[in-house]
Amino acid sequence: MKQIQNLMNYRPSVKVVDATLRDGGLVNEFRFSDEFVDALYKTNLAAGVDYMEFGYKADKNMFDVNAFGKWKFCNDDDIRAVVGENDTPLKIAVMADAGRCNYKQDIINRADSPIDLIRVATYIHQMPTAIDMIEDAKKKGYEVSCNIMAVSTAQESDVKTALEMLGKSPVDCVYIVDSYGSLYPEQIQRLAAFYKTYTEQYGKILGIHAHNNQQLAFANTIEAVADDVDWLDATYGGMGRGAGNCAMELLLGFLKNPKYDVFPVLKFIEKYTAQAKAEGAVWGYDVQYMITGLLNQHPRTAIAFTKEKRGDYSNFYSETVNHE
Amino acid sequence: MKQIQNLMNYRPSVKVVDATLRDGGLVNEFRFSDEFVDALYKTNLAAGVDYMEFGYKADKNMFDVNAFGKWKFCNDDDIRAVVGENDTPLKIAVMADAGRCNYKQDIINRADSPIDLIRVATYIHQMPTAIDMIEDAKKKGYEVSCNIMAVSTAQESDVKTALEMLGKSPVDCVYIVDSYGSLYPEQIQRLAAFYKTYTEQYGKILGIHAHNNQQLAFANTIEAVADDVDWLDATYGGMGRGAGNCAMELLLGFLKNPKYDVFPVLKFIEKYTAQAKAEGAVWGYDVQYMITGLLNQHPRTAIAFTKEKRGDYSNFYSETVNHE
Repeated sequence: MKQIQNLMNYRPSVKVVDATLRDGGLVNEFRFSDEFVDALYKTNLAAGVDYMEFGYKADKNMFDVNAFGKWKFCNDDDIRAVVGENDTPLKIAVMADAGRCNYKQDIINRADSPIDLIRVATYIHQMPTAIDMIEDAKKKGYEVSCNIMAVSTAQESDVKTALEMLGKSPVDCVYIVDSYGSLYPEQIQRLAAFYKTYTEQYGKILGIHAHNNQQLAFANTIEAVADDVDWLDATYGGMGRGAGNCAMELLLGFLKNPKYDVFPVLKFIEKYTAQAKAEGAVWGYDVQYMITGLLNQHPRTAIAFTKEKRGDYSNFYSETVNHE
Repeated sequence: MKQIQNLMNYRPSVKVVDATLRDGGLVNEFRFSDEFVDALYKTNLAAGVDYMEFGYKADKNMFDVNAFGKWKFCNDDDIRAVVGENDTPLKIAVMADAGRCNYKQDIINRADSPIDLIRVATYIHQMPTAIDMIEDAKKKGYEVSCNIMAVSTAQESDVKTALEMLGKSPVDCVYIVDSYGSLYPEQIQRLAAFYKTYTEQYGKILGIHAHNNQQLAFANTIEAVADDVDWLDATYGGMGRGAGNCAMELLLGFLKNPKYDVFPVLKFIEKYTAQAKAEGAVWGYDVQYMITGLLNQHPRTAIAFTKEKRGDYSNFYSETVNHE
């Protein structure tokens, strides 16, 4: 039987990463009010969250700065306006997508930046770009993590190669990413054991980023904790693309480290998460997301179904199976 | 590591129990239209569901028949009007609450009834009544299961005694019941192992009934499958008291036995579950249920919070902690 004594005690190496602005930004084009962002930063501090991800360092040649809020681009000055010198235990993160980030130019030296952690996100076929990004960020002085996205559709042999490449790279943390919300806890257990053979050998941290397509984002995250995964992504109210993410309030309710406090999170969501919903942002579990999760597909069709306010789940199922 | 080959294959002894009318009835006073119930019966048949629970056999001396829909009482004639002779593989169940059921009178011989399974529900301090009900139902020819409710607040030594009593009784199946939605998958694993020492010794089946207070009803149910729990409760759209139950659509999507078909379930929920919601029935995960789940309390305060359309989660948390 799995070692479960950690349900009563805690592992100090576990860290919580708030991805609200980044994954949540995908459902409102990153149009968060300054008040929202300021309150989120203060709440993360009060709740004992370890990392706050502000958004993407997206390539401004590729994406129109007028079509998105500022957290799609995460200028260092915009972050600085929120966190000042950030003389706090809360570390600041941004995501840099392989193939969608002008990293050599847009990521400056850590010494001159409020950012602490660069989170490189990559599909498996882009690994050489990701490795270059990791090396670049590391050379500039950052902590660096890497998300291998859509692992549920990747070949095991390719994942092995990717993990070998990451093992030999200077990356600090490798993420298990359930992009399609298709994985069950037992698969998380298998993946964690598989990833661990590499991360242990090379001295890397393991992380998890889950999606809630089958109401398993929280379950998969706490399964991962029991499998020695240390960095845990969550978002306030589960705010994130499609079915959303592991909810911060559920995760902090579960974790036993006394440094975490769920109460400020409740204060935030009753005001600001509710506000985001009132302003029209839509996310969270619904049957269309279960369907794409079940079929291990990208949620884009389910997101379109949601946008069109459709409720004909059975037609959607037929359409989705038909496109397999 | 847990044996997980069943994610690819299946265990034929696994049975699915539809509890929509019973647990769902708790959120609409059992006021389902005849069309709803008829469609549900036909859908369960089409979906390969094994048992359909119609409702309670509630004591008419104790509960006003005018204050509830008919499935609070489950007259045999009312069931017969839906299922006729029920010459199908779908078995019919009702719940009988210890201390709230006039079982000697209201439960007739199985030979004269459309009902196949009596589901005795009991708190741990009512075990002698439950055993009497089990013996009575068994003598009348029924399959019998027993739910020990609110196990998360019971003393382990008392649960041992209850399991010993049930082992020696003629009950067919013993349920792990997470009444407050407070249990994590690892606790389900522990409980299943604990219950199993008795059910194996005495040749009983194990079942699970989960609640979704922490978005874990489905996760806990599939954890239980991996722990050799065979009877799985679910409800369409998760319809059930408070945060609701394990959703039938998630469960049938997960189970690999080809006899199960999720498609008719989608047809049902897009029409009838949506209708129940439109008529004002409210259920499903929300933060107030997480709070009572987290604190291992009965959800009644969270249900009141929901009814009052409150959204001040942080006040509710303070109130709830204050009453611990």
